[in-house]
Amino acid sequence: MKEGNIKYEELLSYTGKVLEKLGYPKEQAQVTAWSLVEADARGVPSHGVGRLPFYESNIKSKFVFPEAQLEVVHETPLSLVVDGHNGIGPYLAKFTMTKAIEKAKNVGAGFGALRNSSHFGMAALWAEMATAEGFIGMSFTNTRICSVVTYGKERILGTNPICFAIPSAGKTPFILDMATTTTAHGKVEVYERRKKPMPIGWVVDENGDDTSDTIEFQKLYRSPNPYGGHLFLGGAGEELGGHKGYGLGLFVDLLCAGMSMGSWSKETFSKAKGCAVASFFAAIRTDLFGNSAEIAAHVEAILEGVRNSAKAKGHERIYIHGEKEIERHAVSMVDGVELEDTEWKMLGGYAEKFGLQKLEPHKDTIAKKAGA
Amino acid sequence: MKEGNIKYEELLSYTGKVLEKLGYPKEQAQVTAWSLVEADARGVPSHGVGRLPFYESNIKSKFVFPEAQLEVVHETPLSLVVDGHNGIGPYLAKFTMTKAIEKAKNVGAGFGALRNSSHFGMAALWAEMATAEGFIGMSFTNTRICSVVTYGKERILGTNPICFAIPSAGKTPFILDMATTTTAHGKVEVYERRKKPMPIGWVVDENGDDTSDTIEFQKLYRSPNPYGGHLFLGGAGEELGGHKGYGLGLFVDLLCAGMSMGSWSKETFSKAKGCAVASFFAAIRTDLFGNSAEIAAHVEAILEGVRNSAKAKGHERIYIHGEKEIERHAVSMVDGVELEDTEWKMLGGYAEKFGLQKLEPHKDTIAKKAGA
Repeated sequence: MKEGNIKYEELLSYTGKVLEKLGYPKEQAQVTAWSLVEADARGVPSHGVGRLPFYESNIKSKFVFPEAQLEVVHETPLSLVVDGHNGIGPYLAKFTMTKAIEKAKNVGAGFGALRNSSHFGMAALWAEMATAEGFIGMSFTNTRICSVVTYGKERILGTNPICFAIPSAGKTPFILDMATTTTAHGKVEVYERRKKPMPIGWVVDENGDDTSDTIEFQKLYRSPNPYGGHLFLGGAGEELGGHKGYGLGLFVDLLCAGMSMGSWSKETFSKAKGCAVASFFAAIRTDLFGNSAEIAAHVEAILEGVRNSAKAKGHERIYIHGEKEIERHAVSMVDGVELEDTEWKMLGGYAEKFGLQKLEPHKDTIAKKAGA
Repeated sequence: MKEGNIKYEELLSYTGKVLEKLGYPKEQAQVTAWSLVEADARGVPSHGVGRLPFYESNIKSKFVFPEAQLEVVHETPLSLVVDGHNGIGPYLAKFTMTKAIEKAKNVGAGFGALRNSSHFGMAALWAEMATAEGFIGMSFTNTRICSVVTYGKERILGTNPICFAIPSAGKTPFILDMATTTTAHGKVEVYERRKKPMPIGWVVDENGDDTSDTIEFQKLYRSPNPYGGHLFLGGAGEELGGHKGYGLGLFVDLLCAGMSMGSWSKETFSKAKGCAVASFFAAIRTDLFGNSAEIAAHVEAILEGVRNSAKAKGHERIYIHGEKEIERHAVSMVDGVELEDTEWKMLGGYAEKFGLQKLEPHKDTIAKKAGA
């Protein structure tokens, strides 16, 4: 354990307790705590325990109802549609993907569309449930609006992430988990704190023009003004392919909201509909295409070919998607999970508020003795 | 008909004749001619009849065998794997997607993996076969190497296009057909002819560094040097999301080559394997998720929401993916198909070579009379 870090299990248990205090039933609390702590352990703090105050505020504003009962509104041997009735995202995602995987086991492929859900955490967590069975996994979700489409200026779509996961015979599957926007808003906030201009291609201003002015953009973004927002992968216009990123983001909304008859990004987080995000999941057996073990070995051979290709000047490694996160997870299981000061403070606040035993960062007493 | 253009049917018939002279059996010639002329009619000349010399050269270098017999090497109620034995891409794509759609009709979804194929033309053509039935359609293919991955410098992947198509109740389905690279090489060639520097984010040089030097890049790209090449969507490094575009491109190769046990981009166009590109197709019924007509109407309502959102300064229209091409197609059916001078010359060359009746651009004799 590294000084200042927190043991995975301790953080998991504490986060679960906080969620129960916020009104989550035990099962919902456990899967949500797991989804948050997994993100921190993988070095993806944007989807980690730092989300707790956001989850709390969603309950307070009646966008999310932790005790909501999910309802399967349509089902076939290959598919199901779930209405989450504005319940808990990770719980609903796990339920829907579990069913999709069951269907894949039975008939070869399974698809789940989910409406009236809430933030489901890292998309990778759900697609990985399929790769754990040796299946191809996919997960998609729309989100609260933040992004502007090509030749638009109004925030109408979300970060709309895509996760494609493919099993391989190597140490780790291929797990591409990506917002279809160029960057997450958390990165803009980092630039704001550092008073740095943003790269062109992240966001546009209220006219829909490129801007690098972090301070002005943040004022706009926090105002009721509906114009200006994040760009999709490829940036503004078409020169660097921004229309492609926009297409991917829109595809996610059509798949998630379209197939579930749910709300598209623009209609999420509204008084009328509540949180109401929509997601989509798929599990596809690789033995639809032959011998699974041979296919997994072939996939790994391709990944090895990519890893071993010539490196750009100044670089020593080509990463496969998912590797960084899985390697960081292994480190976190030994060294403990690293949290930021603001997160320690937030977690401490919940201890006071709910009368929980305060979570303490690890102190390496042996190292201290040796140093004394 | 517009002066200088060519009637769709005339171009189709002529292209088919040229392909038969090149050794294509009748059926292969017809579907290939259709795929090329469709691209020109839609304003996508990069995939149009201008490809004929490339197709010819593939036969000469024994990368493609027009008379090859396809073989279904694996089949389940949901899926099939086809070995094209280096036959004709559009013919193999049509066969595989037709089968996938049949399977979707029978059981709800169908998947086809295809190996040892050749250039299949516009990806949209095959995904649209599914939307024509009211199904979700997807098509993917790897291609000849041209692109460099994040932190790499060696050309190891192709343009690796993705097509996602979703039926809607509106005039046109949503059809996202995109290379996962930032731009097609055809655009670099346009900049070369105009002696213009390229935007940063299109390509990297032999060290893997950004470059805008079109002339130097083209020298490198045409040399046997394996370094330097196209970038994926998001450009070099991670700041603008280049690792995401690379992830999409790699996903395409894992899906196409991985599931078909075929060659990944790096191994295509080789003496050992021939052309050997790999593709993947999917057809998914939307009634897996409820009432298809209601879902299509809901999809269209989302698209309308996007179309009607506020426009950026200087822009009057937000496009949905596929609209531009379908609108241009309608114009081409009235005005005729527009070809470039180089294409007229190339087509004329085939007339001489094969003793075919020369194709002539339309002359508007009525307009001339009126003007006289």
